[in-house]
Amino acid sequence: MTPIRVTVWNEGRHELTNSRVKTVYPKGIHEAIAEGLREVGYEVRTATLDMPEHGLTEQVLAETDVLTWWGHMAHDDVSDEVVERVHKRVLDGMGLIVLHSGHFSKIFKRSMGTSGNLKWREIGEKERIWTVNAAHSIADGIGDYFEIEHEEMYGEPFGIPEPDSLVFVSWFAGGEVFRSGCCWYRDKGKVFYFRPGHETFPTYYHPQVRRVLANAVRWAAPTNGPQVTIENRAEPLEKI
Amino acid sequence: MTPIRVTVWNEGRHELTNSRVKTVYPKGIHEAIAEGLREVGYEVRTATLDMPEHGLTEQVLAETDVLTWWGHMAHDDVSDEVVERVHKRVLDGMGLIVLHSGHFSKIFKRSMGTSGNLKWREIGEKERIWTVNAAHSIADGIGDYFEIEHEEMYGEPFGIPEPDSLVFVSWFAGGEVFRSGCCWYRDKGKVFYFRPGHETFPTYYHPQVRRVLANAVRWAAPTNGPQVTIENRAEPLEKI
Amino acid sequence: MTPIRVTVWNEGRHELTNSRVKTVYPKGIHEAIAEGLREVGYEVRTATLDMPEHGLTEQVLAETDVLTWWGHMAHDDVSDEVVERVHKRVLDGMGLIVLHSGHFSKIFKRSMGTSGNLKWREIGEKERIWTVNAAHSIADGIGDYFEIEHEEMYGEPFGIPEPDSLVFVSWFAGGEVFRSGCCWYRDKGKVFYFRPGHETFPTYYHPQVRRVLANAVRWAAPTNGPQVTIENRAEPLEKI
Amino acid sequence: MTPIRVTVWNEGRHELTNSRVKTVYPKGIHEAIAEGLREVGYEVRTATLDMPEHGLTEQVLAETDVLTWWGHMAHDDVSDEVVERVHKRVLDGMGLIVLHSGHFSKIFKRSMGTSGNLKWREIGEKERIWTVNAAHSIADGIGDYFEIEHEEMYGEPFGIPEPDSLVFVSWFAGGEVFRSGCCWYRDKGKVFYFRPGHETFPTYYHPQVRRVLANAVRWAAPTNGPQVTIENRAEPLEKI
Repeated sequence: MTPIRVTVWNEGRHELTNSRVKTVYPKGIHEAIAEGLREVGYEVRTATLDMPEHGLTEQVLAETDVLTWWGHMAHDDVSDEVVERVHKRVLDGMGLIVLHSGHFSKIFKRSMGTSGNLKWREIGEKERIWTVNAAHSIADGIGDYFEIEHEEMYGEPFGIPEPDSLVFVSWFAGGEVFRSGCCWYRDKGKVFYFRPGHETFPTYYHPQVRRVLANAVRWAAPTNGPQVTIENRAEPLEKI
Repeated sequence: MTPIRVTVWNEGRHELTNSRVKTVYPKGIHEAIAEGLREVGYEVRTATLDMPEHGLTEQVLAETDVLTWWGHMAHDDVSDEVVERVHKRVLDGMGLIVLHSGHFSKIFKRSMGTSGNLKWREIGEKERIWTVNAAHSIADGIGDYFEIEHEEMYGEPFGIPEPDSLVFVSWFAGGEVFRSGCCWYRDKGKVFYFRPGHETFPTYYHPQVRRVLANAVRWAAPTNGPQVTIENRAEPLEKI
Repeated sequence: MTPIRVTVWNEGRHELTNSRVKTVYPKGIHEAIAEGLREVGYEVRTATLDMPEHGLTEQVLAETDVLTWWGHMAHDDVSDEVVERVHKRVLDGMGLIVLHSGHFSKIFKRSMGTSGNLKWREIGEKERIWTVNAAHSIADGIGDYFEIEHEEMYGEPFGIPEPDSLVFVSWFAGGEVFRSGCCWYRDKGKVFYFRPGHETFPTYYHPQVRRVLANAVRWAAPTNGPQVTIENRAEPLEKI
Repeated sequence: MTPIRVTVWNEGRHELTNSRVKTVYPKGIHEAIAEGLREVGYEVRTATLDMPEHGLTEQVLAETDVLTWWGHMAHDDVSDEVVERVHKRVLDGMGLIVLHSGHFSKIFKRSMGTSGNLKWREIGEKERIWTVNAAHSIADGIGDYFEIEHEEMYGEPFGIPEPDSLVFVSWFAGGEVFRSGCCWYRDKGKVFYFRPGHETFPTYYHPQVRRVLANAVRWAAPTNGPQVTIENRAEPLEKI
């Protein structure tokens, strides 16, 4: 079986200017995410905002089964042309995994048709992420819940369409809840949003976060089996 | 407009034996619920487990647009025949609102096809109920969230089908979340589950709880407009 | 009760140039739609593409509970600014009902995040519209199905998100099916797509089509009840 | 990777008495279904109504990842005890694929909470099955639609809960539509209903039908990856 081809996209700006982020993610957030996905056998490349065409050329996208997206301070620097290109690929079958502050990215708002609004608070409180659909393949290996000791809080109301499947809901020590793991279908493509991942916390080294991302890639990847036709059947139906 | 006809069903056993419950609900839980629904103009009757046929005769059900269900310690005392009768009426269009510990009632499990399992803890902690679908009519007038100072905790995983609409999610001080307001369609009928309502707390006097129940009755009530047919149209289509 | 305020928007171009359309809709498609909605007591105004700001000023939108949208040949002539304005109002609670060829309108694609693609064939074949969610208020009074003798065919695959509720599915004589009545939530607003309504057929005089539109307006209208707060409750909770 | 373990259950009564069925399925419907699933590498066993405990002992179910269910004339002969046993396993994670006339089986009604009602007509008309969710893995390799030359017709309204994902919709020559491929989550388990498969037609030799079943087994199978815990992570989070 050919391995799933993942492109991990990262804005990559915080890492240049914020020493805390540099310390937590010395090679950039994208490398921490990529490392987790390589561990499970995917074929992973990375791309960042400051590469030509943000590293998302037609060819790169054509060779990508699943794209993960991390952005925060520079959503507006992503060119509309690249956003349209990515969106077109999603509708054509490429999986898209939007992470954390990507809720305000152009590609997420473009794909959802909603505001992406939410509440937030950045004091590094505890997040407990509950599985609410244990039957879903993205929850595989997670159990009832897992915890992240320090994370930024995101709270409802979250300006998203009702998820086609809601897999995780977060509890925050400060009193909020959040729909943290959400699946949607968009034409031939699948979109997953996953909440955790603030740049100043080591979230992308967290084993359960990595497991969720690995599961999500598998779910979001297109299933590209050969087309079945009446001609390629094993035996004639007419015989009966 | 004819008022919506509601039957408020209550097991009515805790009130007989538990002095705390007697103090909080001197006329029974059903009367507190009924009072809130009468306030908004519905035509409300009550029925309890210990009435003949549990107060749910064919005639009562035939005259009921929406049935609310509160049960806890005596789920097994509800006769299978009455459960089937209620279920048949739900499939035929009667709305059903299942409250709190009704998650383990025969009629809820029969209507859902799932276990109804959940976690619980009874220390009277704070519950904060968040609106996650502000567009839904059941959230009308509620705002981002409301609080109940003391309630029993219910936690995920909750053994229900994915809601057709998820309206509320609860946060609990002890670290749990819960899908607290859930809508489903069942043939011609609608089902709403609403979490709060432990018998030892004055939850059914709470203004926002009452508002949710009033909203839910309106949503769950069948829409019984006259059948439109090609014959009763205003003007002939053939003219064009 | 204040009547629901509807703005019926129409591109209004076919009526100027196509004599068949002029014959079927002498006052424009918008007046036929508006007439059906006035019959049930809504407060209806109309707006068209060639009015200043397409008739959709900030004030008009502020006074609109539900906007219906018919467009076809001139989707690109709708200004992006007005589309953003309408979208913002939808997210803030205004209902949106997109009709027929509006599947390719900017506002629909903007609200869905999908392509809006579909198959079509214009030979005026028979359409039979089946109710698949009889419990939904938009199906009220419709029964199992109704027929439109002559309509343009739209066929799957239809490039939309999975509907939050799927109410109608069309059968076409030529062999296609189509998800004809689809509901979605978008932040605080609701969106309904309804398939029938080709400009050369008298579809908007059809009694069941009018009934669906009347039902859909009621469903999509915001529920603007007064905010309930702990302060405006009838009696103190503390007493218990 | 261990192969998915499938148990193909068949009532097996028509084959004993109806010569047409005997001709089409000389080894029974179950063997035709099993053959198709073996082709793709699953580990398949069969079980029938007239075996002790209907062939569905605790041990068989414990060793089953996905159970397919074909029944028609003898739904009432299935013991309630076995139905409860199967249901319990579904809630605990076993996939369930209900086929054709299984819409009236005890296990399907038990799992859905609805009537399972539908319309039918048995004249062997053409069925065209349209994909309405091309992104779903169950539609892999199917394309826009496929046809079955002769099948029994099933028509809406179909007494099921709104599918969590609707993958296929059937068109019938006689004027009906039907939600033919429906997914639901039930606690930890997944349920798929697939419409075609009347006993007098060679439907289970049809290549696209076989492909759908193979896809559905893969989707419905539990994902049993090892539980991830904070202890089995690769590197300490504390270091940062």
